[in-house]
Amino acid sequence: MGAPNPDAVIAALRTVLPGKQGNIALHEPWFIGKEWEYVKDCLDTGWVSSNGKYVDRFEVQLAEYTGARHAIAVVNGTAALHVCLKLAGVQPGEEVVIPALTFIATANAVSYCGATPHFADSANATLGLDPAKLSDYLGDTAEVRGGTCVNRKTGATIRAAVPMHTFGHPMEIENLLEVAARFKLVVIEDAAESLGSFYKDSHTGIFGRVSALSFNGNKVVTTGGGGAVLTNDDALAKYARHLTTTARLPHKWSFVHDEVGYNYRLPNINAALGCAQLEQLPEFVRRKRELAAAYRSAFSGVRGVRFFTEPPHARSNYWLNALVLDAAVSDRRDQLLDTLNAQGIMARPVWTLMHRLPMYQSCPRMPLDTAEDLERRLINIPSSPFLAAGKQ
Amino acid sequence: MGAPNPDAVIAALRTVLPGKQGNIALHEPWFIGKEWEYVKDCLDTGWVSSNGKYVDRFEVQLAEYTGARHAIAVVNGTAALHVCLKLAGVQPGEEVVIPALTFIATANAVSYCGATPHFADSANATLGLDPAKLSDYLGDTAEVRGGTCVNRKTGATIRAAVPMHTFGHPMEIENLLEVAARFKLVVIEDAAESLGSFYKDSHTGIFGRVSALSFNGNKVVTTGGGGAVLTNDDALAKYARHLTTTARLPHKWSFVHDEVGYNYRLPNINAALGCAQLEQLPEFVRRKRELAAAYRSAFSGVRGVRFFTEPPHARSNYWLNALVLDAAVSDRRDQLLDTLNAQGIMARPVWTLMHRLPMYQSCPRMPLDTAEDLERRLINIPSSPFLAAGKQ
Repeated sequence: MGAPNPDAVIAALRTVLPGKQGNIALHEPWFIGKEWEYVKDCLDTGWVSSNGKYVDRFEVQLAEYTGARHAIAVVNGTAALHVCLKLAGVQPGEEVVIPALTFIATANAVSYCGATPHFADSANATLGLDPAKLSDYLGDTAEVRGGTCVNRKTGATIRAAVPMHTFGHPMEIENLLEVAARFKLVVIEDAAESLGSFYKDSHTGIFGRVSALSFNGNKVVTTGGGGAVLTNDDALAKYARHLTTTARLPHKWSFVHDEVGYNYRLPNINAALGCAQLEQLPEFVRRKRELAAAYRSAFSGVRGVRFFTEPPHARSNYWLNALVLDAAVSDRRDQLLDTLNAQGIMARPVWTLMHRLPMYQSCPRMPLDTAEDLERRLINIPSSPFLAAGKQ
Repeated sequence: MGAPNPDAVIAALRTVLPGKQGNIALHEPWFIGKEWEYVKDCLDTGWVSSNGKYVDRFEVQLAEYTGARHAIAVVNGTAALHVCLKLAGVQPGEEVVIPALTFIATANAVSYCGATPHFADSANATLGLDPAKLSDYLGDTAEVRGGTCVNRKTGATIRAAVPMHTFGHPMEIENLLEVAARFKLVVIEDAAESLGSFYKDSHTGIFGRVSALSFNGNKVVTTGGGGAVLTNDDALAKYARHLTTTARLPHKWSFVHDEVGYNYRLPNINAALGCAQLEQLPEFVRRKRELAAAYRSAFSGVRGVRFFTEPPHARSNYWLNALVLDAAVSDRRDQLLDTLNAQGIMARPVWTLMHRLPMYQSCPRMPLDTAEDLERRLINIPSSPFLAAGKQ
């Protein structure tokens, strides 16, 4: 293998993206269903805010599609993660295991609880948290005392683990559940990127005690801004609704709140958009998988770079397609990014790893060799569903 | 004066609300402008999320209308308050003066900063924080040391004061600014209810260093859910934009964040709604003031109850109209509320005072005689702008 020739990479991309003029974004929303109809219904009836039938309907659709017993719609994925951590009982001063390779929201949500992220390494095959490495590391670093996992170095309780399904690719959730059970960690799935992705036969987000979805503008379906909490636990679902509506006790008129709550419920107008989008989700995923297959084929002969494909246990939504540069040529990454962007093909590296950011530099972490290696080598490329087969 | 006769109260309400059938809500949104045009434009262009021209336009319209130099649109009023407190430099362990008579968001936003609300009494004439009482109380309780206000009892820094313009009625902001200057408190205006309300000739929300607006579904204009931060300070405005967009540093592709930030920006589709609503704000306020004038006249002859009118220094939006029961008959409040609601006229008491809620019971507070008196006597009545002159 040699260095990836930017011209060869662009040529491969152009075979997949024929006829596209102008800039090609990483991920754009697509409104070809009943979006107008439902949003107009909101405006016509005056029900645009948090009470409204589209919120209920969106939650039912989400539960049906994912197989989760409950879905609670919230303002965005970050809020969903924050609520998940509160539901998991994360307390100030505790630690929460999260991958170093993730979007900032995972770490920030831990901070909002007054807790500390504890960074874990990634697996090459999934881009997600590596359960085997976590098991070894916790064996060395932590111990279970009285049913609670304690970090022997910091003395803090390690309350939970938040695996994230990177770019939509399901991580090894069953292996992680086994490790978490052994170390008494609550599992919260960060499924912000993996709506439409399945681990074996089950949708991502139904393995953890609670999990978080996102419907930001760049996600597989969008509500403008939005997110959801999934859970199979009736009591947690009820508590999630309470926490996200300012913890107000039901009463015909009085305003009594029994704890510090949040104003996190999704407005009805955003849910209306979401209802229409969810109706199209299977088709969006089909097209995104078609696009991924085309990329895979196009890059099969390109030197120095490979197209990242779903792990064997998974059926991925291919939310954000990724190229992996050969290790030997990772120093060409920025040059390649420059060339692609200059040609109007939006491309970017993965997020800066969390432990490099100033506010998270001093957080506890395991050796992050794989995450650091992936950070140098990953490039995301255009992934909108309408790019499949050049159709728009 | 005697007890308010529920029949007389209902008769007075009916003279103002002729011909309305079915339940009359406290406050409903009204979409009679370009809402659909702008929202459809969002859907047609695919720009529904946080980057989009309607967010920029909404902020310009807000700044122009209020006279603030900068407006930063966020997901809701609670988020706006949270950001304001961060901008004011509120640190964990500090105290923030807020009225006991307010909506829960004011207190919760203080909690989100790890700070403690310190409850202040209200003024009868404005329903807002009483600057004279605050001055006397701080004189007894606090002292300025090295340019910082310190609570002598708790030893904590009192960093800021958050006056709230209750039901849209401007509180005595100039007097408060004087007290705050003397005690070195940063002033943050909670203007969530007072868009369209003026203190003397200036819009509420431009007196504090920063202030918070809300566009919840029940507000004078709505974006479904939404809020904004107002400030005249260029550096704070820039920082507000940074904090509300995950504190990400500008870069052509890399994701580097320099502190714990928030996912608080308003989606474009909600801003589109807001642009259309703001175009109608002067007309909405005109109609709401017309409705208030009609109530005032209708209640002038009703025993045991008076209609709350704007203080002399103010031109209020009359966001939420209020009746005040005579003190002698405040024990009839719930009976009156029952009767009104049974008749399909939505009515409710003011929020339970903050210091009665379990999570805020042990917070520091001054004597709250006026707030406690008002709590027993206030009743909110229907206030939608289309109710004016019975037009819908």
